[in-house]
Parts: sequence; structure tokens; C-alpha cells
Amino acid sequence: MKNAGRIDGRTQLIGLLATPIGHSLSPAMHNLAFEKLGLNNVYMAFEVGNEQLEEVVRGLRALNIRGYNVSMPNKTTILQYLDELDDSARFTGAVNTVVNTNGKLKGYSTDGSGYVRNLREHGIDLKGKKMTLVGSGGAATPIAIEAARAGLAEISIFARDDQFFARAKENVRIINEDMKHAQVKASIYPLEDQEQLREEIRTSHIFANGTGVGMKPLEGKSVIEDVSMLRSDLIVTDVVYSPAKSRLIEQAESVGATAINGLGMMLWQGALAFELWTGQEMPVDFIKEQLFADQL
Amino acid sequence: MKNAGRIDGRTQLIGLLATPIGHSLSPAMHNLAFEKLGLNNVYMAFEVGNEQLEEVVRGLRALNIRGYNVSMPNKTTILQYLDELDDSARFTGAVNTVVNTNGKLKGYSTDGSGYVRNLREHGIDLKGKKMTLVGSGGAATPIAIEAARAGLAEISIFARDDQFFARAKENVRIINEDMKHAQVKASIYPLEDQEQLREEIRTSHIFANGTGVGMKPLEGKSVIEDVSMLRSDLIVTDVVYSPAKSRLIEQAESVGATAINGLGMMLWQGALAFELWTGQEMPVDFIKEQLFADQL
Repeated sequence: MKNAGRIDGRTQLIGLLATPIGHSLSPAMHNLAFEKLGLNNVYMAFEVGNEQLEEVVRGLRALNIRGYNVSMPNKTTILQYLDELDDSARFTGAVNTVVNTNGKLKGYSTDGSGYVRNLREHGIDLKGKKMTLVGSGGAATPIAIEAARAGLAEISIFARDDQFFARAKENVRIINEDMKHAQVKASIYPLEDQEQLREEIRTSHIFANGTGVGMKPLEGKSVIEDVSMLRSDLIVTDVVYSPAKSRLIEQAESVGATAINGLGMMLWQGALAFELWTGQEMPVDFIKEQLFADQL
Repeated sequence: MKNAGRIDGRTQLIGLLATPIGHSLSPAMHNLAFEKLGLNNVYMAFEVGNEQLEEVVRGLRALNIRGYNVSMPNKTTILQYLDELDDSARFTGAVNTVVNTNGKLKGYSTDGSGYVRNLREHGIDLKGKKMTLVGSGGAATPIAIEAARAGLAEISIFARDDQFFARAKENVRIINEDMKHAQVKASIYPLEDQEQLREEIRTSHIFANGTGVGMKPLEGKSVIEDVSMLRSDLIVTDVVYSPAKSRLIEQAESVGATAINGLGMMLWQGALAFELWTGQEMPVDFIKEQLFADQL
């Protein structure tokens, strides 16, 4: 019998559990990496919400698949179904990657470490630095936690004074209390206080947007109202990567600041999950060229 | 972003639950058919035994996958986890194909209908004919049941007088009683009685081997001890397809009988499952040429 292509009786499944998932970039990224490295895996997305999650987790364990990603709306719900949490997931209160080792399920959050790793690829070390971060949601929280774990001296978090403000306060409490050993000074401010924002940015090395402001449906908007808050020796990062140049990235470039969009964080969160499952490094540069040449 | 190959966020999974599964031909067959027809599905095999089966069935339902095959050792165990059984599965007491329609799981056995369909492709109609069949296991049982449903007048089943003889007797009872409407006369004999076997073959149109005799570890063996039991106007079928010419097929050809090996049955059981999942016909001739050119 001839070889009928890449999938045979020994091909191993890696999944993504989220809804909606039709537009996820992860299947393209991981499948390309599997092919490039000659690994007999496929990555497939499944429409799974909170209602199906427990049975799916049990079923995938019984199928003995090596692991999967979880995304919205399952990142928090899944905690209760896992056997063990990595610190990245425990402090963040969210999981984006599950690894099955002989039936034991361990949860990780690679979003924040993806952010930190991407900065390192840009030659930026967080040790001893001060960061001002906007946001308290699914992207901002792991950035705060992992940046703190990576050696920040200080972090000032700004969030809108709405129902999510409590989450921002909790992140600050976790950094100051639960992660006391990290010795990071965390503070919380309402985003409405733009003068405080100006002051915190002025004394920061890094300004990070962890919100969806700048992408649809908020394309063209920025969390910075006045570009004079930025300066040329500031590092500005955005979680937004579509468009490749958000309004904030444009503002940063206009003052000569170092501007880093969200593509690298997205790639590196995937690469770190890939490494947890396979023990091999994802060929990130190759993936970037193949899939995102138009966004570099 | 470029298209990164065949698998994207909308690719649908079809599975195979069995153990061992490393050597299954089904992934090659179904994936080739999906590609040929441009269907966005992949077929993957999972090592699943009876102990994992219930959680896997629940999990795959929660993942809302369209369906899967089951093979040894799960063909009987799975009955209790399904919502509904097709007659092909009910009379056989075994399922090889599960179809999920809006969360309702229906079990089918396409092994027997694959056998019947393959005979039809060879221009053979079972209506009114007599068959002598050897075996009472996972291949012989669906052949007996579906051949009876396809209009046989008479079937004589031979099985070794061992612990499996009871299953052969039960198959005969099902055909004579539960399937009374089919009006087939079924009889059961011990395979040790070769003179009875000679007599039943003499009055049969079709002689079928439904056992693994002829393939490893019984390669070179045949359920027929004396080739004079066969004749040129007999149709001889074997479930064995590896080797392509089993000892029985060689015996049949040596007397000028019509000889049909197990490849067509294997392909058609897959094709009928494929049609249940996708509503489309598997391109069987294409698959045969691409995958089994050396066995035709």
C-alpha cells in the first residue's frame, strides 16, 4: 500500500477547545510547524464552550491525546478539571495550554511567557524595569503576572473603572501578596485618570496595551489620547496584531519609540505550548515568513 | 495569511476507536477520499480499549464530531453507549460505524453490507441463493446477517466446536427467528464434519470463508482440506485480503471457480461508513488504484 499523505494510523492529535474557532490562526501555525519538523501530529480546532468542557476534557484524556490549547470562553472554567497547575496558570487564574502526561493533566498559561519571550527576542530584559500596563482581561492579566515573574521592579496597571476593575485590583493583590517573593511593587489606577497615566508612563521603561483597543471593532482607537505621553526611549507594546500597525503602534513610531505589535506574543505563546507538547522548538522565524510575511 | 495546507480551523474530525490501530488501512483510505472529493475532514485513529470507551464516546459527542469507526475490541461494548441501532447493528450485535446527528448517536454495522455490496459490484445477486459460510466471529457474523437480509434462500454455517460455537448457534437462531420475515433457512454444523461441509458446498452457489484462516499467523492454510469440494461454477469468497491470494483463493482459482478476496469487502465497509458520515460516495475505484494497485 502506498503512503497516502501525512495522516496515518499513528498520527497524534493536538486540539484547540474554544468557541468561536473558525478564524483561529493556531491550526495553520501548529500544522505548519509539525510538517516542517516532520512530526506526526495534527492540530485541530473544536467548537467547545463551557457546557461541553468537562466531558470533552474527560474524553480527550481517555483518548490519551498529548494536549491541547484552550481559549475563550474556557480559559478559566477548565481549571477545575485539571490535576495540576503550573505557576503561570495558578497566578493568572487561566489556562491556555494543557499537557497530558500519562493521564495527568497539567495546565499552563503561555500567553504571558509568550509576551516576555517575545521581548527577549527583541533584546529587551524586564529585570529591574518599570512597566505601565493598560487592561485587566485575558491578555493583560498574564502579561502582568509573567512580566512580574520575569523580574520587573514595578508595574502600574490602569483599567477602566467598570465591572472589570475588580479583576485589575485582584491582579495587583496577587503580585504584591501571593507573589511577594518576586518583590515587584504593583499599583492600580483608573484609566480615566489620564494625568496619572502620563506620570506613570513618564517614569516607565515600557508601556503596554493589553486591551483590544486598536482592533475591530475599535480599529483606529488608542488607549493613549495624547501622543506627548510617549517618548523616543520608551518601549511600546501592543497585544493587537491585526492590523499590524494599530493606532498605538503608529503613535509610538511617530515619536521614535521602540514599537512592538502583538504578533510575536501570539507566535511565542504558540511556540511555548508547542514545546510543552513535543519537547521541540517551534521554527518561529519560518512560521512568521510563511504565514505572516504581510504583517512584518 | 497564506493557506497552510489541508487542515484549518474548520476541519472536521472522523475517528477510529480500536486497539491496536497502528496498522489500520482506514486512515489512508478515508483521508485519500476526503482529499479527492475536497471535503474538509480528516480521519484519525485512536488507541481505545473497552476501559476508555465510555468516556471517549461521551467526549466525542461533546466535541460534536460527525462520527467514527469502531473496531476490535469495541464493536460489542459500544452498543450500550449509543442512542439508537440500525438493523445491521442490532441483528449483528456489533457496531463498526457511529453517526452523530445533533448529539444522537446511531450505530451501524457496514461490514456485512460491505460484503454484499462488493458481491453486487462483481455482478452477484444473493437473492434466492444458498451460501455455505465458515466462521462465527467479527467478520463472519455480519456476513451471515447481511447476506440473509439481502435475500438468501438458505445459509449453512460451519464453526469449530469450541467456545465460539455458541455464537454461531445464536447467529442461526437470529436468522431463523428474529429475522423470520427474511424467510432464510439457516443451519449450523461443526466444521470438524468435513463430509457435511462437502455436501453443503455441493448444493450452494456461494462458499464464504469468514475466518482468519489464510492470513497471519495462519498464512498458507485453508478451511477447505480437499480442493475437490470446490467446482468451477461456485463463487468462493474470502475475508482475507493479505495476502491478496490466500490458500483458499488459490484453491478456488485452480478449479476455475469465481474467486473474490476480502479487499472489496474491506473497501466497501469503509465506503458505506464514509457515505453515512458525508452523504457522498467514496471514490472506491480511485482508492483501489491508489492504495491497493499491488493487490488487484
